[in-house]
Amino acid sequence: MSGSKCTRLSGPLVKQVLDSVDSILFDCDGVIWRGDQAIPGAAQVIHLLKESGKKVLFLTNNSSKTRKMYADKMSRLGFNVREDEVFGTAYCSAMYLKTVCKLEGKVYLLGSNAMREEMEAVGIQQIGVGPDHISGGPSDWANVPLDPEVKAVVVGFDEHFSYMKLNRAMQYLTQQDCLFVGTNRDTRLPLEGGKAVPGTGCLLLAVEAAAQRQAQTVGKPNRFMFECLASKFGVDYKRCLMVGDRLDTDILLGSNCGLKTLLTLTGVSTVADAEAHLKSGCVERQGMVPDYYMESIADLLPALQG
Amino acid sequence: MSGSKCTRLSGPLVKQVLDSVDSILFDCDGVIWRGDQAIPGAAQVIHLLKESGKKVLFLTNNSSKTRKMYADKMSRLGFNVREDEVFGTAYCSAMYLKTVCKLEGKVYLLGSNAMREEMEAVGIQQIGVGPDHISGGPSDWANVPLDPEVKAVVVGFDEHFSYMKLNRAMQYLTQQDCLFVGTNRDTRLPLEGGKAVPGTGCLLLAVEAAAQRQAQTVGKPNRFMFECLASKFGVDYKRCLMVGDRLDTDILLGSNCGLKTLLTLTGVSTVADAEAHLKSGCVERQGMVPDYYMESIADLLPALQG
Repeated sequence: MSGSKCTRLSGPLVKQVLDSVDSILFDCDGVIWRGDQAIPGAAQVIHLLKESGKKVLFLTNNSSKTRKMYADKMSRLGFNVREDEVFGTAYCSAMYLKTVCKLEGKVYLLGSNAMREEMEAVGIQQIGVGPDHISGGPSDWANVPLDPEVKAVVVGFDEHFSYMKLNRAMQYLTQQDCLFVGTNRDTRLPLEGGKAVPGTGCLLLAVEAAAQRQAQTVGKPNRFMFECLASKFGVDYKRCLMVGDRLDTDILLGSNCGLKTLLTLTGVSTVADAEAHLKSGCVERQGMVPDYYMESIADLLPALQG
Repeated sequence: MSGSKCTRLSGPLVKQVLDSVDSILFDCDGVIWRGDQAIPGAAQVIHLLKESGKKVLFLTNNSSKTRKMYADKMSRLGFNVREDEVFGTAYCSAMYLKTVCKLEGKVYLLGSNAMREEMEAVGIQQIGVGPDHISGGPSDWANVPLDPEVKAVVVGFDEHFSYMKLNRAMQYLTQQDCLFVGTNRDTRLPLEGGKAVPGTGCLLLAVEAAAQRQAQTVGKPNRFMFECLASKFGVDYKRCLMVGDRLDTDILLGSNCGLKTLLTLTGVSTVADAEAHLKSGCVERQGMVPDYYMESIADLLPALQG
């Protein structure tokens, strides 16, 4: 195999790379689906990889679904994937608060019902899910009643995000012993047809600016998500391939964990983006250069069918 | 007068500095009031400066009030100030869109009724003020109906800021010919008692991250606000003092316009902040070093009464 980075993965090299790994990790949005449409051929690729004996796992920064909801979506789109094979930031954030932070206290949660459910499943109490409309004036907002049991602010995807929630998060975070955790920093959620909507990263930037503090983020490129699944499924990082569409999350996670990395071009990042990192000469940017790239994971099919 | 920067303004130097200027510009929040409480002595200082023949003008990045609302608040807190002596970003943004951008089309406005009124006063149509609650899912949000007449997104202080508004702004800004203007970048609005609430800068960061574009901001430290008032009142920048509590807005504006600058310590920035800029050796940070500082504008009183 070539020692050079950012190589097009095609021809006999595909089989060589697949033979060199036992586990393959897939990002979801932009890799196996876009919005509610599966990437053509993706379901078959997953099926054949599993049939050939590979461990196939999924890790997504999207915090809007529980593991159960992901399994249901997978099934609806024709993927044969079990609930425990999907690691989303709703589940991983709950695990992070419990196992790393060893949180004792409630969470003020800017997030979804899915995040609430995953927290409740590990015994973490939370408040804040749902609409929080504004009333009164600045002086009322600054003196908004705070729950003394809240010991962490967690920011995930929240379609009910509002000025009042931003303010409440800021008031909690003014207490220096209040933990500050974000699910991820993706600023856009890519959808079918090249469309997109604002991602959690936008909300997190607003809260960080108001609080004048930086959040610890759980999602890719933080190693935590890989460690979660590696310990559960006995994944050997030396024989593992990470497949993703974003250089700053998926590929950087792979680099951070010593995995082989494959960029697919059905999502956010381009080969030009990767080459710009490669040629920058900047050490910090080399982690965002994938080992390989291909148009779509469907390009793995010939090697799997051969 | 000393040629050195960041000098405590006291004793005979106060009168020397006042004698060297004809116009004095005051920031509002953190300088003449905090929230709904006047800084003690501030009203008397303004009164005596006017009586001594100085032009006294006010410029604030706060976009939540019309000039009329500022004059009313001034009067309520005991200041003798006319409507046309106050330059807020609600008014200045409307002027900026009309005179600099020469906008032809509607504005999608994340802002207050005050901003709506100032825009309407100069004949600019806008949509978007008030609540905009969420419904549907990501695919609905990405395909939200857009008004084809909208040619600019303007972000000011908006207590009804929500995910849906963030999304709508992003969808408009995906059109490359859509202008993108922010009132200001202050991330906190300081209130009485050391309290604060999130400022417009937090909202602007979220919209910029979603849109993957930078807004042009109208407020301090942009020269535009000074040019607005200088042309209207015939202010000579060489004989003008800018008084403010923030180094990155008030003092930098003064430096950008060649004004003398005075930091007061009743608001956001500290002398230590100023000295850190001074000692950094960084050229870009020297503009944030004030010529003078004093605890409060009330410290001007002895020289005015003497």
